[in-house]
Parts: sequence; structure tokens; C-alpha cells
Amino acid sequence: MMIGRVVGSVVSTQKDERLESLKLLVVQVHDHTNAPTERYVVAVDAVQAGLDDVVLFATGSSARQTRLTNDKPCDAVIMAIVDSWDVDGTNVYEKWA
Amino acid sequence: MMIGRVVGSVVSTQKDERLESLKLLVVQVHDHTNAPTERYVVAVDAVQAGLDDVVLFATGSSARQTRLTNDKPCDAVIMAIVDSWDVDGTNVYEKWA
Amino acid sequence: MMIGRVVGSVVSTQKDERLESLKLLVVQVHDHTNAPTERYVVAVDAVQAGLDDVVLFATGSSARQTRLTNDKPCDAVIMAIVDSWDVDGTNVYEKWA
Amino acid sequence: MMIGRVVGSVVSTQKDERLESLKLLVVQVHDHTNAPTERYVVAVDAVQAGLDDVVLFATGSSARQTRLTNDKPCDAVIMAIVDSWDVDGTNVYEKWA
Amino acid sequence: MMIGRVVGSVVSTQKDERLESLKLLVVQVHDHTNAPTERYVVAVDAVQAGLDDVVLFATGSSARQTRLTNDKPCDAVIMAIVDSWDVDGTNVYEKWA
Repeated sequence: MMIGRVVGSVVSTQKDERLESLKLLVVQVHDHTNAPTERYVVAVDAVQAGLDDVVLFATGSSARQTRLTNDKPCDAVIMAIVDSWDVDGTNVYEKWA
Repeated sequence: MMIGRVVGSVVSTQKDERLESLKLLVVQVHDHTNAPTERYVVAVDAVQAGLDDVVLFATGSSARQTRLTNDKPCDAVIMAIVDSWDVDGTNVYEKWA
Repeated sequence: MMIGRVVGSVVSTQKDERLESLKLLVVQVHDHTNAPTERYVVAVDAVQAGLDDVVLFATGSSARQTRLTNDKPCDAVIMAIVDSWDVDGTNVYEKWA
Repeated sequence: MMIGRVVGSVVSTQKDERLESLKLLVVQVHDHTNAPTERYVVAVDAVQAGLDDVVLFATGSSARQTRLTNDKPCDAVIMAIVDSWDVDGTNVYEKWA
Repeated sequence: MMIGRVVGSVVSTQKDERLESLKLLVVQVHDHTNAPTERYVVAVDAVQAGLDDVVLFATGSSARQTRLTNDKPCDAVIMAIVDSWDVDGTNVYEKWA
């Protein structure tokens, strides 16, 4: 899994039938200091994430292992909202700070 | 999933039997400002996308989770045509603009 | 899928039993102008491709979705020989030119 | 598989139900001289790894092939703690040194 | 698949039970001229490869398609020892030379 921040969303009306009613969010990938990188991914939201939330996302076939994404053409899913994470004893992100 | 623009197509007569009748489109990958990158992918079209459409595509085993691509040697599928997407409150693409 | 050119082959006698009789070709990956890149992949040939053919290959679990590669430790397959492809209205490759 | 060092952990209360009770560790990826790179991954711990342990992790669908991660939206798992590894006759890491 | 050279091995006593008795080798990835790159992978050995052997390895779910690695948390497997390979009519590697 990787960590990123929800920075936006994608609207689509003409799409595969199995995608109906799924929320598609744009996640900007963060590096190990919680700083934003140039990379992004569009992920299905499985945890009611909101704009600016720092989240954990899974990619590949693992992205289909939630009730919402099972058997769907979805290769990225947000499966956790991060409260905090630390690296080498330093708190690099704290949601409630 | 990633976002890209349909820039072309691929014609092939000698191919695996399971690929018969699938439309193969060339998608140029876009970055998070909707600007084109140097990367591309050839994807099966599952949503009747046309040239210049901005689309969402899925890769890996998830690309086989549409009725069209099920059990086929296909590792990328266009599964949505993007109407609009926004990043940090800015509309980076609007189909009907 | 990506596009590349068949540039060589790999010979191996000591290999997993499930690989017996599969032809292993070296494919140099092309960019979106059909120019060669520094990247390559070794792929199983499912379409009788020959040296110098421009081909389409699939990777990951999708590479096992041909009759030849089913259930085999193969993560890349050539599943189509390209006749032509075009990008933004320009024909970047034409087999019979 | 790749080798890395456990450098931290991620705390999340709002997450997919299937992730309950899994420990999420931050692993900094090492290169082939055992030196840290800029890359990291968040992985589920399947072997009681601790901070600073050098570990082996698997990604993709293979990350779901442990009793702990089976059928879960997890795309990276720590499946071994490294005692030692050597490259070209040189011991690049020794746990008990 | 990619080609690389076996440059070392990894020793681990505390590991997932399904990994017992598997040999874990360090493979340095080669480029298309058979020259070593900075990339490496740790792979399970399915063909009795030895130090310095030039080998073919598969990654992802395909790495589980050998008798040895079936259903195991293994995302890379050595499935062939290379005797020779050639690129554009040039023999870039010959085992018995």
C-alpha cells in the first residue's frame, strides 16, 4: 500500500455498468516524509474519505478485495483513512494536530 | 486507475483468437494537471470511446473485469469516459467546455 | 498492453516443466512514436511472431489468458502482430510499407 | 520480493472491515548493497517484525497468500525477517553482527 | 519475464510457514545487452540455479505457477537457466563460451 492525499474527484456518466455508484477520487501519492510527489492515482473510495484526507490505498487485484469493489474493473481502492504515521521515531503526519 | 487521452488505434489481423472483435486504442497517459506525459498504453475499449476522449483506464487483472474483456489476454481497459475532473478545487478538465 | 519489436530469442534447456515447448522471444519496448526505448521484456510467443515483427504484448496475470500460456509461470505474452498503428492522425508504423 | 527496513507504522481507525487487527508497517526499500532508497511501501506484518528489522516483503496478489492476509485488500506483506544476505561473496547485512 | 544473474542469497529463520524450504536468491537484473543494472529482485529458485547463473525470472501472480511456489507468498520465481540469448543477430550471452 502507499499513502496519499485526496485532492479531487472524477465525474463520468458513460462508464462500464459495474462502476455505477462508485465514488472515484484523485489521490496524490506522498513520499516517506509525507510530502506530495508528482504521482497520482484514481481510486475507488471504500471508506467515505473526504477531500484533504490522508489515506492508504491498495492497487492491483488487491483493490478488488472489498465488498464495494469485488469483481469490478477497479485497480486502486482507498481502504483506510490515516490517523497518523511515523517514520524513524518522528511523527510525519497527525490528523488531529 | 489513471487518466489519459485516446490518441490513436492499433490494427492487427494475426492475433490471439480471444482478441477477435475487440477495439484496441492507444491512450496517452496524463499527469495530475491533465497534461500529457511521455507514457502510453494500448487498451481495449469497453465504453465506445472515440479519438480525443479523455478516459479512465484500469490495468492488470482488473482490466479483465468487464463483460468484453473477461478471460482475455488484455491487461488494460478503458472503463469510463471522463466528463470532468478537478484537483484541489480547480477544474483541470471539462468535456463540454 | 505495450508495443515493441521482436529483437531476439532466449534458449534454455534447464527450465520449469510447464515451460517446455514455449518459444521465448526478446521484445524491445517502443514509445508512442514507435521509436525503440531502453526497456525490453522476454515474452512467450502465442501468435507465431518472427524477428523484426512489431507486436503487442500483455503482462501480468493477463499473460496467462491464452491457450498456450494457461497456468504457466509466464508473465508476458505476445498476443498480436501489429499491421499498423497511428497516433494523432499520423501513421507511426505500417507493416506493409 | 524486495528487501527493506521497518521504519515506522501507520495508525488508522476508519478502515475497511477486513483490515481490522492487521498491523501496518512502513518499510523503506533497500538497494542491492542494503543501502536505503527513497522508496517505501506500507505492508501488513505477517511475521511479528519490529522497528529496524530488515525484512523481505512481497507485493501484488502474492501478498494475500498468508493466513493473515487471505482475501484482504492488502497488496504488500512482510513474510520474512532477514538474518543475513550476501551479494557477490560479500555479506551486505548480518542481523546479529 | 526479465533476465538477470544470480548474485547472492537471503537467509531467514523467522518467516511465513509457507516459505519453509524454499531457496531465496538475489538476482541482479540485466539490460538488453546483458549488462547489469542497479535493479535486483529476491526470487524463489525453481530450477536449481547456482551463483553466477544467468536466469529468467517471472514476477507477480505468474511467480506462483510452479509446483514449488503454488499458493505461496512469493512474487518472483526463477523458472529457467539461460543457455544463450541473442539480440539483433548478436549473441549477447553464451553459457558455455
